[in-house]
Amino acid sequence: MYTLLKKEKRARRGRFETPHGTIETPVFMNVGTLGVIKGAVSSMDLKEIGCQVELSNTYHLHLRPGDKLVNKMGGLHRFMNWDGPILTDSGGFQVFSLAKIRKIKEEGVYFSSHIDGSRIFMGPEESMRIQSHLGSTIAMAFDECIELPAEREYVERSVERTTRWLVRSKNEIDRLNAQENTINKKQMLFGINQGGTYEDIRIRHAKEIAKMDLDGYAIGGLAVGETHEEMYRTLDAVVPHLPEDKPIYLMGVGTPENILESVERGVDFFDCVLPARNGRHGHVFTARGKINLNNKRFEMDEKPIDEGCQCPACRHYTRGYIRHLFKAKEMLALRLCVLHNLYFYNKLMEDIRRAIDEDRFHEFKAQKLADWSRGQEPHIEK
Amino acid sequence: MYTLLKKEKRARRGRFETPHGTIETPVFMNVGTLGVIKGAVSSMDLKEIGCQVELSNTYHLHLRPGDKLVNKMGGLHRFMNWDGPILTDSGGFQVFSLAKIRKIKEEGVYFSSHIDGSRIFMGPEESMRIQSHLGSTIAMAFDECIELPAEREYVERSVERTTRWLVRSKNEIDRLNAQENTINKKQMLFGINQGGTYEDIRIRHAKEIAKMDLDGYAIGGLAVGETHEEMYRTLDAVVPHLPEDKPIYLMGVGTPENILESVERGVDFFDCVLPARNGRHGHVFTARGKINLNNKRFEMDEKPIDEGCQCPACRHYTRGYIRHLFKAKEMLALRLCVLHNLYFYNKLMEDIRRAIDEDRFHEFKAQKLADWSRGQEPHIEK
Repeated sequence: MYTLLKKEKRARRGRFETPHGTIETPVFMNVGTLGVIKGAVSSMDLKEIGCQVELSNTYHLHLRPGDKLVNKMGGLHRFMNWDGPILTDSGGFQVFSLAKIRKIKEEGVYFSSHIDGSRIFMGPEESMRIQSHLGSTIAMAFDECIELPAEREYVERSVERTTRWLVRSKNEIDRLNAQENTINKKQMLFGINQGGTYEDIRIRHAKEIAKMDLDGYAIGGLAVGETHEEMYRTLDAVVPHLPEDKPIYLMGVGTPENILESVERGVDFFDCVLPARNGRHGHVFTARGKINLNNKRFEMDEKPIDEGCQCPACRHYTRGYIRHLFKAKEMLALRLCVLHNLYFYNKLMEDIRRAIDEDRFHEFKAQKLADWSRGQEPHIEK
Repeated sequence: MYTLLKKEKRARRGRFETPHGTIETPVFMNVGTLGVIKGAVSSMDLKEIGCQVELSNTYHLHLRPGDKLVNKMGGLHRFMNWDGPILTDSGGFQVFSLAKIRKIKEEGVYFSSHIDGSRIFMGPEESMRIQSHLGSTIAMAFDECIELPAEREYVERSVERTTRWLVRSKNEIDRLNAQENTINKKQMLFGINQGGTYEDIRIRHAKEIAKMDLDGYAIGGLAVGETHEEMYRTLDAVVPHLPEDKPIYLMGVGTPENILESVERGVDFFDCVLPARNGRHGHVFTARGKINLNNKRFEMDEKPIDEGCQCPACRHYTRGYIRHLFKAKEMLALRLCVLHNLYFYNKLMEDIRRAIDEDRFHEFKAQKLADWSRGQEPHIEK
């Protein structure tokens, strides 16, 4: 259940109660595709870096190790040893971005596995069954994620089908939650708003799904190639038409700047592979913008990645040491940078929440954007 | 300074005081070639898994990031943020095992870097200077590690040269320790006994270097291709000729079985890449022998790697989950197994020390060897 604690213009400070604990919003979900965060980060580490919600991928876990195996092992929480909230996506996005040779029909999608090419069918019922097997806290409805740019006519037909799939998703999850051997009988369902960058289609769809009294509402199909301005314009248009008493989740977004802009537009939930992926390449976030630790200027830098940061990497190691680890192709380099970047995101959300609590989110946002664009102080050689 | 606390036949329980803390012996040193343990294990993790001594490689650190850089960063302890004892090898073994096109002269060895082929010279003075730059707790003398099998005549000439190199190593380290800007002015030096599997040459060399009053004595050039029986026979022959009031270090050894056999023969220090390397391949040590987590029989195994083990992997994750991580090529798999295997080794040494303390090492050894060869209980499918 979502409680709106405070609003500052459209920015929302809320609290979302789930069967696996309370989520303070706005929140950034830490992405662990296969039930693990890439970069040798464990569920124990997630607790240390301030993660509130872990996100795993239905499509990936269905293929490997298989949702039935995870189910037999007691569900995803027990499998990965994480007792906090887990959100699973529906597989919709992955089917459209990863799978080969796909065919979309009214019943669902026929496609080939990106691992071994084997033929698979997934529709709303299949997606819900997999997510129920995994026992995640929040399941996502099965939708079609439309590639942009897209013809208006195609988008209209697709969005209508996504609405029909949402009804089927809801019916199936209700049925599964009522079954005896379901791991999480209180599994929640978020619907997904689609419509590309056509504001009128987005709004019509938002109004339609808002009637369904779901546990939350996601905005999907953004951050897939459109400009940031189109994304913000779409948020401006659609967010006011989603229920105010439910959390709003912007899927797959984004940079720290994107997050500030989207919180300002009323978004509560975020997820993105960006901090972990950046970290694995030595690109790390600091109070003064992103830096690339592979750069020679950090060779003898005795400062932590980000001065004042309390993450495990910054408390114990210097930029010079971590740069050495990258050059030597040592895995610890990746681990430290992923831990740092996820901590940076989780801490950013905490700071955002406090700023809204204290009615100073807009100043906070302006200050952060200015700080991040300042860049690093010049490095003084000893 | 080494204090012999107790003996059970030849097995020794001791204590070695160093400028970076006390080492309880027998001890296994955890290998972090480049100032980091492979498998995303940090110096913070080392504290958690019971590591007493970290071992780094002079040759590797000289090439990357360079010992001068490490020196400017405050030495290896500060660079990798480890305040316990560090032993650095001399580079001798790596020059002979990794470098290409090498030429051995009285002054030292000319060779090509295994990274970029650049030509390098290393003799006793160079090795000591690099180790002094690194500021390790214990430096190893520069020696020639002879490939086995080797002709008697070659071994004799080589061992004589190794003795002359030891004298030069000692003179150079004394000079460096007396210098103003040396990071660790109390750097210790261990000499290295050589002689292949020729017992008489080994003994003659041992007697010769024993006179030099070094901080400790290593047995080098074993575990390089000879049989276990030849290794044990060589230990039986040479250990009694090394000073009883100094620690004895068997370089590059070995399996848990090798360690028990060598402790029985009077060895105090060990190091080996085996536990970390095995871990990275999913081969893990248990109270009932080694298992391969890639094996399908562990797919739904809800037990930890080793029941009763208190390592971070066993306290939190199941064999089934870790197997999934290996199959999905997730780095966390390697990290968890390396942590487990190093913990297993460090714990084994702790148990060995307690057994000697309690005068039951020989029973302990027999029991362990029996347990490890029993194998796993058959896995019962649910």
